[in-house]
Amino acid sequence: MTATLNQPTPVAASRLLGLGAARGEQIVDNEQICQWIDSSDEWIRQRTGIQTRHRAGEDVSVVDLSTEAATEALEAAGLQGSDLDAVLVSTVTHPYATPSAAADLAHRLGATPAAAFDISAACAGYCYGIAQADAMVRSGLARHVLVVGVEKLSDFIDNHERSISFLLGDGAGAAVVGPADEPGISASITGSDGEKWGAVSMNASLLPLRDAVAEVRRTGDAAALTETEKTLWPTLRQDGQTVFRWAVWEMAKVAQRTLDEAGISAEDLVAFVPHQANMRIIDELAKQLGLPEHVKIGRDIADAGNSSAASIPLATHRLLKEHPELSGGLSLQIGFGAGLVYGAQVVRLP
Amino acid sequence: MTATLNQPTPVAASRLLGLGAARGEQIVDNEQICQWIDSSDEWIRQRTGIQTRHRAGEDVSVVDLSTEAATEALEAAGLQGSDLDAVLVSTVTHPYATPSAAADLAHRLGATPAAAFDISAACAGYCYGIAQADAMVRSGLARHVLVVGVEKLSDFIDNHERSISFLLGDGAGAAVVGPADEPGISASITGSDGEKWGAVSMNASLLPLRDAVAEVRRTGDAAALTETEKTLWPTLRQDGQTVFRWAVWEMAKVAQRTLDEAGISAEDLVAFVPHQANMRIIDELAKQLGLPEHVKIGRDIADAGNSSAASIPLATHRLLKEHPELSGGLSLQIGFGAGLVYGAQVVRLP
Repeated sequence: MTATLNQPTPVAASRLLGLGAARGEQIVDNEQICQWIDSSDEWIRQRTGIQTRHRAGEDVSVVDLSTEAATEALEAAGLQGSDLDAVLVSTVTHPYATPSAAADLAHRLGATPAAAFDISAACAGYCYGIAQADAMVRSGLARHVLVVGVEKLSDFIDNHERSISFLLGDGAGAAVVGPADEPGISASITGSDGEKWGAVSMNASLLPLRDAVAEVRRTGDAAALTETEKTLWPTLRQDGQTVFRWAVWEMAKVAQRTLDEAGISAEDLVAFVPHQANMRIIDELAKQLGLPEHVKIGRDIADAGNSSAASIPLATHRLLKEHPELSGGLSLQIGFGAGLVYGAQVVRLP
Repeated sequence: MTATLNQPTPVAASRLLGLGAARGEQIVDNEQICQWIDSSDEWIRQRTGIQTRHRAGEDVSVVDLSTEAATEALEAAGLQGSDLDAVLVSTVTHPYATPSAAADLAHRLGATPAAAFDISAACAGYCYGIAQADAMVRSGLARHVLVVGVEKLSDFIDNHERSISFLLGDGAGAAVVGPADEPGISASITGSDGEKWGAVSMNASLLPLRDAVAEVRRTGDAAALTETEKTLWPTLRQDGQTVFRWAVWEMAKVAQRTLDEAGISAEDLVAFVPHQANMRIIDELAKQLGLPEHVKIGRDIADAGNSSAASIPLATHRLLKEHPELSGGLSLQIGFGAGLVYGAQVVRLP
């Protein structure tokens, strides 16, 4: 052994210091959806609980949405961008392979030279981000960490397909995580089941499209794009039954394990905020957890649709607006989605 | 305050337990490059130090490369996939918006239900991954974390452009991080400068291409793709001068600060492994750090080219093969790239 290495000094605990939200400004109702797919307002409400979804305008980017949500979260935390040591953006809809949305966001918030990276964990992305932020703060790697869950799903859907597109909306939710004397984030439960990688996924790789585009450019002939279905602009698809069953049965177990590892019971909660995938999944999870009546349940999906990584912070932000008395109470949050992956923890509401 | 939350139990320290590597099997020399750009073997060697770069075959994916590297890293660590609590894949070239490469990799390694997510931090991705793994292990969030830096850059370049494409190669490097009694990973220094977001970046968003492809499909007319340059298949570009200056001046300071925070001096190192961006940057950083002669410097770029997130673990893996006596010594590693972002730490070599 040669010289000893210094590590950062751990801190006792971490907690959420503030939340922020941004919603796409266009409200898409079920009537509009039924222009694109053969369905009805009644069927959509019955099967999904969704009445409207928010979608962002053409000129609004994931970084724009993130900036709005993050600015509110910083203000709520009583902090400025320059107080941040790290900016984490959980998203699957930033339309650049590189650089990250986080690096741009950090700059816009005046957080430079904060660490910045994007996380790809789909609808579990926000809970993965909170788990990472908790680890970063408690291990001493960072003092204040911004976690943003953001999606502009409207860019990566096909309005004419009926497995998932009609569920989806756009938005951003943000949380600032910082040091605390008492635990404000419980032991996170994060995991994956990659055997079901295809259960929610893009319906194509980008690479065949790349080759077809090159061919069209080279020849001036549209055939490479028009005469095959192998060269699709990738959009989201899901095997609804597989995902529904997994979400209801496996996620109920993960949610219960999260309570157990946190050392609390459902009685101790003031709120339950699962990923807003489908109202029937939310209802089924609440039932299986045997939540007492006083526990408020995030049901933002009715108006906001499924906004993937943004859904949990958006739903939490709304619960706190509507029920400010929940502040300081414990909320169980669980995200799950494409991968398949999941993440859950109990947080003390700011 | 209601019930108290349980947090994971922190552990004293973390360290690298094993490394693995996978290289694209096609060797592309400067002669081949000069078929695509007007240059010469001599000019390329003089300006970049690159003689060849490894590129993967058409049928090899980032998950294939990752699986090969990770399998070796697990074996070196004396562990199995099922011992992993988390799988982190740092990449910008996985050709699916979602699901992550990590979820597929975890499944292939038999690591299910390990946590799985991808990190987007470009050429700093591996060092960001090591920073996260260190935080996860020390905070008790995970016991064994796999970190993979992997790129198949050959899918996202234009061989006919001359700012960056001729530098780039494909590969994967993997490390297993686990608990330790003595610190094996120093305080990580991670940061960003998003004002230079465009200095290394894709030359287009995917969205105009999406719209043009839709137009060509709808009309059967190739014009939307052939008559405008706004609808490019996005490929990488860099402003070489800006990046060179930033890498040499700013990264030298970050590297020195990393030594200072680790509480060691250059004398204590056995190796220095910067991101393999350009041999002149490597030389200049080594000079500014005043490295003593005994410190071995990672110069894998000469044969392997710049493989972004994979370059540091690949270069480290090679140093350890060629100089097994370095095992147990301290290595300073620093990644930097698109964002702009950077990450650095001192690690005890496994």
